Amino acid sequence: MQIERQVIPRVIPWVICIFASDAVYGGPLDSWNDTAAKKAIIAFVEKVTHEGSPDFVPPAERIAVFDNDGTLWAEQPMYFQLLFALDRVKALAPQHPEWKDSEPFASLLKGDVKTALSGGEKAVGEIVAATHAGMSTQEFETIVLEWIATARHPKTGKPYTDMVYQPMLELLEYLRANGFKTFIVSGGGIEFMRPWSERVYGIPPEQVVGSSIKTEYEVRDGKPVIVRRPEVDFIDDKSGKPIGIHSHIGRRPIFAAGNSDGDFQMLEWTTAGEGPRFGLIVHHTDAEREWAYDRESHIGQLKQGLDEAPQRGWTVVSMKDDWARVFASDAAK
Amino acid sequence: MQIERQVIPRVIPWVICIFASDAVYGGPLDSWNDTAAKKAIIAFVEKVTHEGSPDFVPPAERIAVFDNDGTLWAEQPMYFQLLFALDRVKALAPQHPEWKDSEPFASLLKGDVKTALSGGEKAVGEIVAATHAGMSTQEFETIVLEWIATARHPKTGKPYTDMVYQPMLELLEYLRANGFKTFIVSGGGIEFMRPWSERVYGIPPEQVVGSSIKTEYEVRDGKPVIVRRPEVDFIDDKSGKPIGIHSHIGRRPIFAAGNSDGDFQMLEWTTAGEGPRFGLIVHHTDAEREWAYDRESHIGQLKQGLDEAPQRGWTVVSMKDDWARVFASDAAK
Repeated sequence: MQIERQVIPRVIPWVICIFASDAVYGGPLDSWNDTAAKKAIIAFVEKVTHEGSPDFVPPAERIAVFDNDGTLWAEQPMYFQLLFALDRVKALAPQHPEWKDSEPFASLLKGDVKTALSGGEKAVGEIVAATHAGMSTQEFETIVLEWIATARHPKTGKPYTDMVYQPMLELLEYLRANGFKTFIVSGGGIEFMRPWSERVYGIPPEQVVGSSIKTEYEVRDGKPVIVRRPEVDFIDDKSGKPIGIHSHIGRRPIFAAGNSDGDFQMLEWTTAGEGPRFGLIVHHTDAEREWAYDRESHIGQLKQGLDEAPQRGWTVVSMKDDWARVFASDAAK
Repeated sequence: MQIERQVIPRVIPWVICIFASDAVYGGPLDSWNDTAAKKAIIAFVEKVTHEGSPDFVPPAERIAVFDNDGTLWAEQPMYFQLLFALDRVKALAPQHPEWKDSEPFASLLKGDVKTALSGGEKAVGEIVAATHAGMSTQEFETIVLEWIATARHPKTGKPYTDMVYQPMLELLEYLRANGFKTFIVSGGGIEFMRPWSERVYGIPPEQVVGSSIKTEYEVRDGKPVIVRRPEVDFIDDKSGKPIGIHSHIGRRPIFAAGNSDGDFQMLEWTTAGEGPRFGLIVHHTDAEREWAYDRESHIGQLKQGLDEAPQRGWTVVSMKDDWARVFASDAAK
């Protein structure tokens, strides 16, 4: 829904009032401990929404971008989309008897992901082509929705969408209630996230930016389809993130949240703009409730971000210290 | 601004109420004559917004897409973006003395567009590279904004943004007031439209889809910039339009408006979806108030669309018969 800019200030009180009475998420940022990180977020939002303040930002420019893997949901022991691909290889194996003798599939089918991925980019390309391409976009959406509804995480046994971070859901909601438009900007596949992003995060497909493969428009038996081709189109990671933001959103965000050095340029681009800006890094410090990893991790490596956050004024959120609750599926305290 | 789906029905009465009291555009579709086209639009909108109706479409799925050149603003005697490029060539000529002796620039500087463009794709590529690339995205935005504020149309002498169609502005507004999200899906350059689309059409940059050149993220003297490169990235025309829609929006529109065969696939993709759909073609039939052209035109050619509109159920809008007023700058009747 599109609302004229001048109308928004008059609508907001009603929207906030309605949100408060719905109380879907409890109070704002309820799962955040009362630490410096939470205070910094609230101070920023109050500052940019306070009309007449020198830091006031008109609603149309309140763009907030969020990485997905490791920022909105977990990413261990490997990216969930890779686990999806592995499940697809198993499901498709009966139609591909030749996979038993050819890498990377032979190792994958034996459960040896490490050997399978030792083939590097070529191996990943073959897995993507076999599991993500060759079907129409509608068929792929159906496959993703079925998987997301039935698959279980290998360690927690939970549905993957239960492994989204409750404090981040509250942050998304808090920003939207204050007139922000929230976007996902992820290295993950754009079409892998879109089918469920609205239900899980309240973020509609048109506000999801991600990596993509090429597609082609065809008319088959009089019915138009968009077909997914086994060729990379765009990688929305590192320097690709500002490019993806610019291509899809067309203006610079004022708020960015990530968790790894793949988000460094997105945070840099966002916070280098003029006026008030907020950069947030989710630091995985909680080996008990989630995972603890950063500088040396093979997934979600965070090194440059940790080193430069202080001088760049970015807020580093420690899962262990700043979050009262981690997963949406955990009981509220 | 992002509003939760369940909130919208409760917000809409307030929004409509506010719009009515602002009366920016007068009544809905005021500049449309009371013909079949107007009635069909209203019947469609009432049908999809009537809760409980079998044709009801939830607000989140009310996606409407509009071509720009020839659909929202004029496109004669040539695409306005080409006129922009010609003005840029003239402005940059003093820095390029070599252009006097090399095509396509030599002919352009003599005002002979036809000869300049006789070089085909290569010539167009060179003009685009010289006028649209080599600067940062911020610099390009400034150039576009300055041009759009000062340039005048060669025939009417009006600012180009005065040559937007009043009935289409009212249609955009009417759809938004009924919970639609409106997008531009144009063969024109995405970065050429975004700087002024919000002010002129009420369509924010993140809802503009268009053709693009490649860009690169760089840090120059500690400041990040996105630089425009002289290489085509994506052509948002013909079969490219459904691809652009899918990439940027991620769901199929239920309403599409175009004016040429460049919009054929967008109309086809939109109206082939299940449930209620609306396809609209603006037919340039008014040689007096605008221009009259279709099958044989070198710009905005409309042939297949005219032939197939009846069997596909698309509404062909005749400017001459269906519009009481053409340009936003014309006096209201």
